[in-house]
Amino acid sequence: MAEILRGKPVLEYMRPQLQKDVCELKSNGITPVLAIVRVGDRGDDMAYEHSVVSHCDTIGVGIKKYTYSEDVKQDELIAGIRTINNDGSVHGTLIFRPLPPQFDDNAVCGILAPQKDVDGITKSSLAGVFTDSTVGYAPCTAQACMEILDYYGIDPRGKNVTIIGRSLVVGKPLSMMLLKRHATVTICHTKTKDISSLCREAEIVIVAAGHANIADKNYFSPGQVVIDVGINVGADGKLCGDVNFRDAENIVSRITPVPGGVGTVTTAVLIKHVVEAAKQASINKIQGKF
Amino acid sequence: MAEILRGKPVLEYMRPQLQKDVCELKSNGITPVLAIVRVGDRGDDMAYEHSVVSHCDTIGVGIKKYTYSEDVKQDELIAGIRTINNDGSVHGTLIFRPLPPQFDDNAVCGILAPQKDVDGITKSSLAGVFTDSTVGYAPCTAQACMEILDYYGIDPRGKNVTIIGRSLVVGKPLSMMLLKRHATVTICHTKTKDISSLCREAEIVIVAAGHANIADKNYFSPGQVVIDVGINVGADGKLCGDVNFRDAENIVSRITPVPGGVGTVTTAVLIKHVVEAAKQASINKIQGKF
Repeated sequence: MAEILRGKPVLEYMRPQLQKDVCELKSNGITPVLAIVRVGDRGDDMAYEHSVVSHCDTIGVGIKKYTYSEDVKQDELIAGIRTINNDGSVHGTLIFRPLPPQFDDNAVCGILAPQKDVDGITKSSLAGVFTDSTVGYAPCTAQACMEILDYYGIDPRGKNVTIIGRSLVVGKPLSMMLLKRHATVTICHTKTKDISSLCREAEIVIVAAGHANIADKNYFSPGQVVIDVGINVGADGKLCGDVNFRDAENIVSRITPVPGGVGTVTTAVLIKHVVEAAKQASINKIQGKF
Repeated sequence: MAEILRGKPVLEYMRPQLQKDVCELKSNGITPVLAIVRVGDRGDDMAYEHSVVSHCDTIGVGIKKYTYSEDVKQDELIAGIRTINNDGSVHGTLIFRPLPPQFDDNAVCGILAPQKDVDGITKSSLAGVFTDSTVGYAPCTAQACMEILDYYGIDPRGKNVTIIGRSLVVGKPLSMMLLKRHATVTICHTKTKDISSLCREAEIVIVAAGHANIADKNYFSPGQVVIDVGINVGADGKLCGDVNFRDAENIVSRITPVPGGVGTVTTAVLIKHVVEAAKQASINKIQGKF
């Protein structure tokens, strides 16, 4: 049976450092604050918001909520984001996506100031990930995968990694982060022939396909590390990942569970980014920059 | 013996359309102009410049040269690029790189206006390639590989492509361009274990390693398409690619030569970008944008 790579120990490892950082910032008169922008009240958004708020409370990060009804006009939403950009007391912003279909996602998210883009949704942040520079922040889910590998001592250097999924939220940025750490990366997707074989041949498999239980026993081989990024509601009404966990845990060496794996760490990464943004704002304040 | 995928027919296919576009622009009072920024007089820069100028002449694109001695101050170079940014008669800029070691490459290249960045060196252009949006232009060498595949009817969709090299000039942007076209992409580099086997298993192999003849007979298998991006001076003093051509041509189905392959098309792509930038400037002029 595989070793379960739970997110909770990673979170518990990250939390004291974050609390210490927040304490220092507060002693300098700065409380890190996250703005949450939510349109409508979808169940999964509400669940993630509840988790974010709860963790922010524990760590000492403040919250400002900007919630809108489903029928809000795009201009009003954009005005809200401009207000956040100009609000010196806010250091990071989480915009729940996907936005309802009447919105132009690029137009809305493009407004967000890169230095407050703690979830890596702007072109500036993504350019930073692609070019390996320090502009903006990486998408939290992608970075959560890296935090899990690091915490459990799994060095991607020289390893063959297969990623299923080519989104800008996980697949593409994570492939760049793994390349930076000297992994050999194969990116698969819906048009890939024989995904299962490309997964079986890898040493680390990262599944971000967005389909419940899509990776079954044919995808895995002994000795592998499996990171399951998916969060789906299974046929039994329970949360499940993109990996058929029962199949995989009998084959591979180490695997993240769903729930309790990547998602748990994603929230900690979001808060880490808010704290980093607050530190940067503090440095800029001392240096007289705005 | 493999079919040789020469660059010349691709160039000859692209040229009449470019000439037609330039003719139309000139009838509207606009001559597309490329600014060339060169520090020092390295042999390979001079050879490429000669080729660019000659092709620009043939197609009707103007040239403005900004040449500096090796000991130019960084501020002076930056001032030159600012002049180009503000010069409405210039539509695209080629900055020869690498710059001599005393320059901060990011600081110099970051100055260039994205709309004149016809060789994809700014973060904005690279963000455009990464996020699949229309900001800036892709690096010319990476796009030249795509032009060759397209011209010879090689559709990357669903194919397994192995790329050797993870640079921002070729490997990374090309992997994103191939993903967009639905290829399955594996990115290899100096820390990859068993590169030769990852190449043998691919249907398309793209070699951008920057080392003469590094890919020998162990890297290839029958039926493959091989794109050789390397331009090196071999032990015999002649130009050669990253692929051992004699080895490969006896094994694979189709292969680009060096010289006369990717490099030949790169110049055409650069001019295509200048023409596109001039068209865009013309549209902006009509719409009253600057």
